[in-house]
Amino acid sequence: MAQNIYDQPAFFEGYSGLPRSVHGLAGAAEWESVRAVLPSLEGKRIVDLGCGFGWFARYAADEGAASVLGLDLSENMIARAKAETASPSVRYAIADLDHLELPESDFDFAYSSLAFHYIADFERLVRTLHAALATGASFVFTIEHPLYMAPSEPNWAEVGGRTVWPVDGYLVEGPRTTDWLAKGVVKYHRTLGTTLNALIAAGFAIRHVEEWRPSDAQLAEHPEWQVELNRPMFLLIACDRI
Amino acid sequence: MAQNIYDQPAFFEGYSGLPRSVHGLAGAAEWESVRAVLPSLEGKRIVDLGCGFGWFARYAADEGAASVLGLDLSENMIARAKAETASPSVRYAIADLDHLELPESDFDFAYSSLAFHYIADFERLVRTLHAALATGASFVFTIEHPLYMAPSEPNWAEVGGRTVWPVDGYLVEGPRTTDWLAKGVVKYHRTLGTTLNALIAAGFAIRHVEEWRPSDAQLAEHPEWQVELNRPMFLLIACDRI
Repeated sequence: MAQNIYDQPAFFEGYSGLPRSVHGLAGAAEWESVRAVLPSLEGKRIVDLGCGFGWFARYAADEGAASVLGLDLSENMIARAKAETASPSVRYAIADLDHLELPESDFDFAYSSLAFHYIADFERLVRTLHAALATGASFVFTIEHPLYMAPSEPNWAEVGGRTVWPVDGYLVEGPRTTDWLAKGVVKYHRTLGTTLNALIAAGFAIRHVEEWRPSDAQLAEHPEWQVELNRPMFLLIACDRI
Repeated sequence: MAQNIYDQPAFFEGYSGLPRSVHGLAGAAEWESVRAVLPSLEGKRIVDLGCGFGWFARYAADEGAASVLGLDLSENMIARAKAETASPSVRYAIADLDHLELPESDFDFAYSSLAFHYIADFERLVRTLHAALATGASFVFTIEHPLYMAPSEPNWAEVGGRTVWPVDGYLVEGPRTTDWLAKGVVKYHRTLGTTLNALIAAGFAIRHVEEWRPSDAQLAEHPEWQVELNRPMFLLIACDRI
């Protein structure tokens, strides 16, 4: 079973205080980039893998989705998602994405935000998802960028007067244990190539790959984000089920 | 016009001494990975963009290619390629890939090894190439990995007792001037996402993306290559013309 870090009180408390938890999609720096590659959600049967507090599920319902199934491992998150969702087209369920089972050809769109880096067996997940999507369906997800996740010490460093992201072990895939909001958070590093090849092997056509950077407007509003141009924090992938 | 660094005497002399120049394909560490994703070359009409000394052109002729057109900006390289090639199915020509023109639907396979990072306008190049390939043709190429090319100082550094690749400016695309074999070599950094999206926009389906790492056999033979696991030096992409 995947580590259920979100139900550890210290982590949950920390996560609940992040801008994206307080302000929802608009509080997520990468949201505008994600929205730009979403298909029309109107009339779609949608599954959201790692739905958290349900911000995207409610957005999709507002956009006219026929149905939204939000799945998350965290009981705390599902409880809050249910409490904050009124739309009858949205359902939530607790699910471990490492052991996901879904009905075949039951969805027109799959979405996931910053969840798959917690998954040990990505190949199994995308095969399951491919079977669960109807032909022509699309799939949009974000993960922590592998360049962000790979280093043994994922923190800025100073080298020769420059602020750099000190990369090591990028080509060594597998678990990474870091301290983020709580101690001992386990994530699974895969190269960008491995992620793309798993999607292609499962039967997805790659439509868009974006190594997220702050927009010029965001940099004007947050000059301290300039350092984020040194390496991507997020990876955004859009693909089509063929 | 692209910088013709290969015809500068110091660079050409240095390049001519590299293992890949002396031993050909077998002297290139990434060759086995490239060969693994090549289609059958038998009967194919092939264009090789940045053919250098013609090692791949002769390999393709030996594999039964119907024709091979090797293109390179360097007069020195084309001269040596011609001198070392006996096969009547191979032709060479001097060409600036930044202003490439090719006949439409005239090729079944396109190949390029470590040339496109010298190209300023990659989008134009892949559009031209898409038009020059027949439907169903494939395209395999390597470039310096953008992670290798991005930093302002692309050299190993020591941080906290670890050997790291100090990344900065990854999300700032554009020229990079480095000293490699000669001073002032100009390369053009694009993110991996930008490279893939340009291919997709031009009409290619991504088939394989590989961030090259030494094989276990290579690491056993060259223990000093262990450091190469910290970041990929090469990027290998295979795609299909749709």
